[in-house]
Amino acid sequence: MELLKRRIIEDGRVLSDQVLSVNTFLNHGVDPVLIAAMGREFAERFRDAGVTRVLTIESSGIAIAFATAAELGVPLVYARRRKALMNEGEYYSERVPSFTKGIVTDIVISKEVLKANDRILFIDDFIANGDAARGALRIVERSGATMVGAGIAIEKAFQSGGSFLREQGIPVLSLARIASLEGGQVRFAEE
Amino acid sequence: MELLKRRIIEDGRVLSDQVLSVNTFLNHGVDPVLIAAMGREFAERFRDAGVTRVLTIESSGIAIAFATAAELGVPLVYARRRKALMNEGEYYSERVPSFTKGIVTDIVISKEVLKANDRILFIDDFIANGDAARGALRIVERSGATMVGAGIAIEKAFQSGGSFLREQGIPVLSLARIASLEGGQVRFAEE
Repeated sequence: MELLKRRIIEDGRVLSDQVLSVNTFLNHGVDPVLIAAMGREFAERFRDAGVTRVLTIESSGIAIAFATAAELGVPLVYARRRKALMNEGEYYSERVPSFTKGIVTDIVISKEVLKANDRILFIDDFIANGDAARGALRIVERSGATMVGAGIAIEKAFQSGGSFLREQGIPVLSLARIASLEGGQVRFAEE
Repeated sequence: MELLKRRIIEDGRVLSDQVLSVNTFLNHGVDPVLIAAMGREFAERFRDAGVTRVLTIESSGIAIAFATAAELGVPLVYARRRKALMNEGEYYSERVPSFTKGIVTDIVISKEVLKANDRILFIDDFIANGDAARGALRIVERSGATMVGAGIAIEKAFQSGGSFLREQGIPVLSLARIASLEGGQVRFAEE
């Protein structure tokens, strides 16, 4: 997606060979025009997949997932990161390490908002080694629902998360695929 | 807002005299049609306030704040809850207790996304005793920006947060004001 790639070049900041900050427009400061356009891209790609629910994990996927869900006309659920919030009934829980934050959290989804007949489109801002996506996929599978696609804003193609999802047979649309952040430079993967 | 009040009656769950769960449509499961309508209400009310940025705090305000920002055509910023995420430059930080979670967190906003000439519309899903709003207001004031209004989905009118903001001279629009949750019943405040 040219709009996103251009914005990454203009306003992204390479913090290390592994970490790209998009704090000013994607996951702290948020540009609604860009995010709405991303939502339309994901909706267009997965329009015929029979999606019944969009799933993301708090917090940084929420705006993009909301835009996608609104465009598809289906509900959204965002997995929460602490059990403390979910002490009111039954939920699915998976332990997930976070690559950028260096911590392990539990992601939880209430059984009220994830059903066995759901067809889930997973949306997130980044995929790196895929731990979050893996956790989300495990929960979806345990619920009996099906993950019919994944829409990722920025895929770090030099890590294995995107490949993992594709190997599971899940169609993945990444709007920007980054081949390398070495030397402080963003290099995108060939289309 | 009748649409929200009706939904609270139909799908909300009173967990105690203090706590109302809206997990199935507002802050875990999210109904994009409802949230978009809420964004339009906030945008309409504050259209002439010269808002330059919408501010919320992760995570449960993000979808509503995004809908509002998209409607107003201004950027959004959501305060993050941990310093670990913000080790890349300067930020404002305030310590905020959470009523429902019983924990204290630091909310942080990068100086990159909050400027002295900003006119801020604060958006959140709930206001109870107002600790989060108070923390957000302190950060806005320290940055030199101005909080020109607050849009709250659900105000617990039996707690003091909404009154606190109004006493600061900040116009507050709450879409549903709850007078009491006693006896497992939602009673709305008179308009």
